[in-house]
Amino acid sequence: MPKIAVLRWGHRFRDERVTTHVALVARAFGASEFIVADVEDEGIRATIEKVVKQWGGPFDFRMNISWKQVVREWKKKGGIVVHLTVYGENLQTSDVLRRIKQTGNDVLVIVGSQKVPGEFFSEKVSDFNVAVGNQPHSEVSSLAVFLDRFFDGKALEKEFEGWRIKVEPSSRGKHVLKQ
Amino acid sequence: MPKIAVLRWGHRFRDERVTTHVALVARAFGASEFIVADVEDEGIRATIEKVVKQWGGPFDFRMNISWKQVVREWKKKGGIVVHLTVYGENLQTSDVLRRIKQTGNDVLVIVGSQKVPGEFFSEKVSDFNVAVGNQPHSEVSSLAVFLDRFFDGKALEKEFEGWRIKVEPSSRGKHVLKQ
Repeated sequence: MPKIAVLRWGHRFRDERVTTHVALVARAFGASEFIVADVEDEGIRATIEKVVKQWGGPFDFRMNISWKQVVREWKKKGGIVVHLTVYGENLQTSDVLRRIKQTGNDVLVIVGSQKVPGEFFSEKVSDFNVAVGNQPHSEVSSLAVFLDRFFDGKALEKEFEGWRIKVEPSSRGKHVLKQ
Repeated sequence: MPKIAVLRWGHRFRDERVTTHVALVARAFGASEFIVADVEDEGIRATIEKVVKQWGGPFDFRMNISWKQVVREWKKKGGIVVHLTVYGENLQTSDVLRRIKQTGNDVLVIVGSQKVPGEFFSEKVSDFNVAVGNQPHSEVSSLAVFLDRFFDGKALEKEFEGWRIKVEPSSRGKHVLKQ
């Protein structure tokens, strides 16, 4: 199964909750690594560390690295880059997901914000520009739906290692295991 | 096709961006109505109005109504209630989505936050408690993936009426229609 890493670009401190949600989505939907470009934000680091400690891993994250360096290293290792953008090829109406999966390569997913550098759209950076629908919504939802479809829904049944807390699915109430 | 409304519970002003993202997801993924329980937040109202004016509708929203009133009215009209929660039946590993769709009824989706009233889990309020995976992530991603699957992916090809701005999907660059 190809490996997925998620690169969050354009984080500002007022975005802390949104970037944290992007990180949690990356982990919950099967990515193995999360990278925040260009910024160090201790609040986000603390939240991710706490979630991994309680709910399990493995899940790597890095911060404060230039996006160019991340992309360069990723491509050097043979991975492809997918840029999620409202302007891209529609995940539902085009065959872009099939073409991405056909490569069989590891995927770096770039999740931006409203004003990303124009270079993100060019073949120098992104192998695919993908729109999770061509309507405005959220980087959190775009990443979740992209990964849900990429893994054919299977990410939602993933078991994590080293958990201290685990939820048992239930039609009523809260059933939590602790160890 | 059943109608979907989304009820956001537990909004606080520091959540403005997250609640706005939930609203945009509701619209983009095929819900026809968005309701913020118990709170009036002009910032969110302005954002939603602007998006509907620019990108089209129809999309209704209401604020500052008690959740009990919303649920009561919904049930009186014969609709069912689905509560999205990390503790619920797993969307992937259970048959809960099939059972929801089998009812054929309109669905009120309740999107909460970390500490929802215990009543939300009981049959007095929710017909189904659904987990978009049993790992922590975000109300934004939970709603998106639930609606994506509910509509069999078709929401992402929905056309909106009365748009002034529309994106043409593209593998490179930004292609925007304006009228």
